[in-house]
Order: sequence, then C-alpha cells, then structure tokens
Amino acid sequence: MGMNRRQRIVMAIIVSGSLVYIILTQALLVFGSAPGEPTQPEVRKLCSFDLKGEGSTKGSNNSAPIIYVVTPTYRRPEMVAELTRLGQTLTLVKRIHWIVAEDSLTCTAPITGLLQRLGLSYTHLASPMPEVYRKERYVPRGVSNRRAALEWVQEHGSDRGVLFFLDDDNAIDVRLFEEMRPTETVSMWPVGLIGDYTVSSPIVKDGKVVAFYDGWPAGRKFQVDMAGFAVNVGFLKKQKKVTMPYIAGHEEDGFLKSLGLSIKDIEVKADGCTKIYVWHTRTAKNPSRALKLEKHQNDNIKVLTDNMREMGMIK
Amino acid sequence: MGMNRRQRIVMAIIVSGSLVYIILTQALLVFGSAPGEPTQPEVRKLCSFDLKGEGSTKGSNNSAPIIYVVTPTYRRPEMVAELTRLGQTLTLVKRIHWIVAEDSLTCTAPITGLLQRLGLSYTHLASPMPEVYRKERYVPRGVSNRRAALEWVQEHGSDRGVLFFLDDDNAIDVRLFEEMRPTETVSMWPVGLIGDYTVSSPIVKDGKVVAFYDGWPAGRKFQVDMAGFAVNVGFLKKQKKVTMPYIAGHEEDGFLKSLGLSIKDIEVKADGCTKIYVWHTRTAKNPSRALKLEKHQNDNIKVLTDNMREMGMIK
Repeated sequence: MGMNRRQRIVMAIIVSGSLVYIILTQALLVFGSAPGEPTQPEVRKLCSFDLKGEGSTKGSNNSAPIIYVVTPTYRRPEMVAELTRLGQTLTLVKRIHWIVAEDSLTCTAPITGLLQRLGLSYTHLASPMPEVYRKERYVPRGVSNRRAALEWVQEHGSDRGVLFFLDDDNAIDVRLFEEMRPTETVSMWPVGLIGDYTVSSPIVKDGKVVAFYDGWPAGRKFQVDMAGFAVNVGFLKKQKKVTMPYIAGHEEDGFLKSLGLSIKDIEVKADGCTKIYVWHTRTAKNPSRALKLEKHQNDNIKVLTDNMREMGMIK
Repeated sequence: MGMNRRQRIVMAIIVSGSLVYIILTQALLVFGSAPGEPTQPEVRKLCSFDLKGEGSTKGSNNSAPIIYVVTPTYRRPEMVAELTRLGQTLTLVKRIHWIVAEDSLTCTAPITGLLQRLGLSYTHLASPMPEVYRKERYVPRGVSNRRAALEWVQEHGSDRGVLFFLDDDNAIDVRLFEEMRPTETVSMWPVGLIGDYTVSSPIVKDGKVVAFYDGWPAGRKFQVDMAGFAVNVGFLKKQKKVTMPYIAGHEEDGFLKSLGLSIKDIEVKADGCTKIYVWHTRTAKNPSRALKLEKHQNDNIKVLTDNMREMGMIK
C-alpha cells in the first residue's frame, strides 16, 4: 500500500472511528433518537367521538376558541368516580372538547356511556404504555395516552383553539377556562397543593415570567405542573418536532422545550399568577379486590358487584 | 321512731337508693342523657345565607321537593379546592339548598365568596366541635357541624324537602339527586369505594331491604355510609328526639335509630341498589406548611401565598 507505520495508524483510527460513528447513529435510530422518545411502537385506537358541542350556541360567544381538555386515565377502582366528577364539571364550560385517553388496549364501556350521557363534544382514545416503560423504576404514567391526544389535536384541532392537560383527580375552578381561552402561544398560572411549597407557580416581575417557584427544580427549564399551562393550537402546529418524553417527572419540561418556547414569551394568567384556580389534588387509592359472593347469588349484590367489575372498581 | 333494726336497714337502703338514683339522673342531665349526647355546650353561628334559588324556575318542575345537601368541612389545605369542585357540581342540580357547616368558630372568607359566586341557594354555618371530643382516640369529626345543619333543617326546611349528607371529598353522579328527590321516609342506595368490600349497600330481596352488605358491621343496626341515604324533612320533623351521636363510626347508625326507623320501611333506590351513583372518595392530605418568603417581597409570590393562607392552604 506504500503507507508507513504512522499513516497506517491514522488510517486505522479513521476507519474504526467511522465504524463507531455508524454503529452509534444506527443504535440511536433503533433505540430512540433522543432521550425519552419511544423505543417500542405505540398502539393507538380511536374508540368513539362526538363533535356536536363545537358548533353549540351555549354561552354568548359561540365563536370563542375551543379548549381541548386532555385527560389521561387508567383502569383502577377510582377511575369512573373521578371521570364522572370531572366530566360533570366540564359541562359547565362552553366550547370544550374533552379528549379522554385511556392507558389500555381498549376503551372502557362505562366511560363511553359517561361521555355519551354528558353531552360534551368529546374524543375517546385508547393508547397503552409500551411494555418497556412499565418496568422502569419511575413509570412515566400518562405519557402514551397524552401523546396520542397530542397527535389528535395536531391533526384535528382548530388553529384558534387551546390545548390544556387536566388529570382526572385534579380540582379546577371553572373560571380558569376563561383565563386560558385567549392564549396566543403558551399561558401559565399557579397550581395549588403540590410539592414542598404547596404551590408551583411562575415568578412574575413587571408582568413577565422571570423564573419558577417550585419545590422540585430537578434541573428543569420549565418547573411547572401539567395543569399549569395551556398552548395555542395554531402555535403548536407550527412547531417542527412536538413531543412529550417518556421520562417520569420531566414530561412538562420536555414538552414545553419541544415547542421552542422562551420563558419571556409566556403569557401570565390568574391575576399576575396570584390566584389559585386549579389544584393538584390526588384521590386516595383503594385496593383492587376480588370479592367472594357465594351467599349473594339471589339478591342485588351479585348484579351490583358485576356492575362494579365493569367499572374497574373490583377484579 | 318505733322502727326495729330490720326496718331501719330497709329504710336506709330505700333512702340511699333514692339518693343514688337522684344523683345519677342529675349526672346524666349534666353530662349527657345518652351515649354520644354532647357533654359540653355547642356553639352555633349563622354566617350568611341566600334563598334565591328556591323559587327558581330552572328545570321543568319548579315545585319539585328541595334537596338540602349538608356538607361539613374544616380548615385544611384541601378545603377550598374540594368545596369549589363539589359546589360547581351542585350548580348542575335544580332545587338544591346547600348547607356548608364549618367546624370552626368563624366562617372562612373564601368559602363565603364561593357560595356567593355559585348562585346556589345556601346557608353558611360555623359550629366548632366541643373541645372534649378533640382529645378522644377516634375523633367524631363532622358531628358538631352536621348537628347544627340538622337543627337548621328542622327549623327552616320545607316539609316536602329531602335531607342528604354529602362530604366535601366525595364524588357524586348528579343522577342520584333525582333518585333521592321523591323520598317519603328514608331512602338508601350503594356507596362505592369504602371498606373491605369496596362498597357499602343494603341487601335487597323482592324489592325490600333485608340486611346490609358492609365490611364493617361493628354492631350497627344500619350499616350505611353518610352518603348512602336521604331523609324526608316532614318525616324528620315528626320524630321526637332526632340526634347524631358524638361517637366516631356510629354517626349514621345513631342518627337513623333516633328517627325510629325500621329496616322494612327503607325505600330502595338506584335500580334496586345495583347502581353506583356516589363514591366515598378521599382526597390525599397535604401538610400544612409555613413558608419562608424573604426573597419574594417584590414579586407575585408574596401575594400568591397571602391568598393561599387565607384559603387555609398554608399556615
């Protein structure tokens, strides 16, 4: 080859370096191109929908932006109770589209019944968490189904609309919906009953967000709770790579970073972030039991517990 | 005296027996005439009220019986969140009068504001638990304020109306209100997410209550949760000695027994007690903190936390 020892060494470094580069980039493509991107396929199912409420004349302003409320949920004893309570509250708000996204392969019949009964404009999705994440120490719960809802909003949402994530166990003052409705990029407000400060809020000086008051910084640029912000749908659609990472505790931060958001662009709501209109309440868990019913084959308890099983209240 | 030794002994027994009887009955009058009756004076305060909703024409039947919903509450970080969530739900129901009774000497301003804002017919009471009960191993929480509300209903309630106890952290399907509205004596239905069976329900055979399906019998005649029954106000007023005992875990049983109720007279609701329209959900507790705010005297966090303190969210 006519190369001396020194040239051969340089050549070997170049070749092996190229091989390492090729292997690494291929590995990234296979195992996820960025931290928190899905490493297993996501299965998504549209169970049912109804857009009837969207053209509704309820309220005085029937051309107001629609609020797309995204509520992830999963089968557990409290599921139907919490969705009933939250869904009834949403019927008090005009121009709402409720996206209920279940972390399961199929949709739950009592939730379908609830959605049909409430008379809201709604979409009912099923999108189970890929199995690989269920084995993690901190399970990124609610990500697969929020991602499915996000995709739905990007595809079907009105550009003038507003996206808002609201968990099924949270408590909300309905005045917050009118606060968030005029959002042009991303708006924020305080969330009560969370973390070491009992609140998570933007710190506001001279009407602008300058930092965050939050008991769990965790290296996050946006130290906010999922219920602490809303996003304009037109703004969302303009972003190139919107995502929510499968990283527990960093879902909000990862999502807001993927919007290319700058802290100075945040719109301040709730009276300069001094009022609390939403709380990160958590409902106490109940064990999922299998009941013995030998003695109750001839009374109401048999039918009652069959109904409870369908609601996910017992095994 | 002309009595022999034997007669003197009999006389002494009679006299001392009479003295013991008089002392015991007087002691009962002073310290409570029955188990669970108050042994210290109860302080009651009517803070504010509004009856505007009662003559309302909302809904088709504006002469339907009024439902008196009694919600006891006490100062804690979750109080305003839970009352906001529940109160908003109640605005979906016609012909409701909401009695919010606080376990405190005075009424809380944000609750007054909430009640005025919701537009419900309401009564806002304060009735602190007598100090003696706060030292008990099982504190009978919510009794002093429910007793105050009970007294209000006996004095001001419409005879055709219906009394219903609903705690601020419970979840309710609004269809339950129409189930309970025609109650003539006492009606009952299942309550979900409670005890070892995940439900508490009457056992119904041939349309009649024959027993109770409840994981905690505890020697109770009526094994029911507070949210599991409604009482006709006219029926309530006819009873001679209506009470609710200061005995934790026996409030419902003591109250229903004081109505002279027989199990065979219970009216069965919720499709023969096979449907769940109310859940004994419990909201996870948050610590009551005192926050340090030296660094936040010139931004929104000072005002935000002042507002939180007024709501009872922090110390």
